[in-house]
Amino acid sequence: MATLPIRIVGLDPGLRRTGWGVIEAVGTRLSFIACGTVMPPEEGGLAERLACLHTELAAVLRAHAPDEAAVEETFVNVNPASTLKLGQARGVVMLTPALLGLPVAEYAALLVKKTVVGAGRADKAQIRMMIKVLLPQADFTTDDAADALAVAVTHAQHRGMAALRARMAAAG
Amino acid sequence: MATLPIRIVGLDPGLRRTGWGVIEAVGTRLSFIACGTVMPPEEGGLAERLACLHTELAAVLRAHAPDEAAVEETFVNVNPASTLKLGQARGVVMLTPALLGLPVAEYAALLVKKTVVGAGRADKAQIRMMIKVLLPQADFTTDDAADALAVAVTHAQHRGMAALRARMAAAG
Repeated sequence: MATLPIRIVGLDPGLRRTGWGVIEAVGTRLSFIACGTVMPPEEGGLAERLACLHTELAAVLRAHAPDEAAVEETFVNVNPASTLKLGQARGVVMLTPALLGLPVAEYAALLVKKTVVGAGRADKAQIRMMIKVLLPQADFTTDDAADALAVAVTHAQHRGMAALRARMAAAG
Repeated sequence: MATLPIRIVGLDPGLRRTGWGVIEAVGTRLSFIACGTVMPPEEGGLAERLACLHTELAAVLRAHAPDEAAVEETFVNVNPASTLKLGQARGVVMLTPALLGLPVAEYAALLVKKTVVGAGRADKAQIRMMIKVLLPQADFTTDDAADALAVAVTHAQHRGMAALRARMAAAG
């Protein structure tokens, strides 16, 4: 039986920069489709910046038509004002694929690093290097896009288990 | 010269309960239009809950057609996990009117209390009481809806000043 390809978008949310990365998974074989960074203009009110983030991200999703989305569970900062700001961007980044009907999974940053690099304490350089090994075609230019691809790879690796757990939970 | 009526929606964001309240302002005369609380189902993933919050809030905005929106600047909690959660809901609550083309203003909770009750330390009971005085028709059943009406009243009071400041800033 042939395994159908699944297209996954990974998302690394931020108000100033949101990374996105689309990959295709056929069984355990992964291939790079596209990646980039959405950067809403820094001037303007918060609501307009969030609207810009949503509109640009929705255009990316329509252009690359992923089947599923995965978002990095954000590092909870010690500074409450930054945490609130990050939360606002993250809410919009979670909402946008959901409005297009995509299931949206969340992965802790620690699990993303463990999955991609094999260690929870990996730094950004190690993530970029491993993404280059796993997806040789990947042409990311920012850490945010590399992180987004790492989240997509994590979802490709874990989505089978997650689906199984959901079926088991539904069966009681 | 007759002053045109302005319809304002006030919003008090939260993932479990988002209060909304619509008023009409003709000069300094305020009248109650409608209010309520959006409560996304608590089961389901975060993305679906945010999508539900957005969809229900968009329906409210379409039904009552406000000209401008005002959102309470959220109390920054000491618990980072709650702050992140609140931020996510707040991002969606700021985005929804912006996507419908409404200007979205923000007001600190302290200013809302000072404007409505006359003191920054006002409690929820005092806010409810003053909203009943200012908007006798208001039929709120939750503190969230009363808070949302308080934010709308605050915007009615301060929007003239805000517009003046914006014009002065634009003029350099």
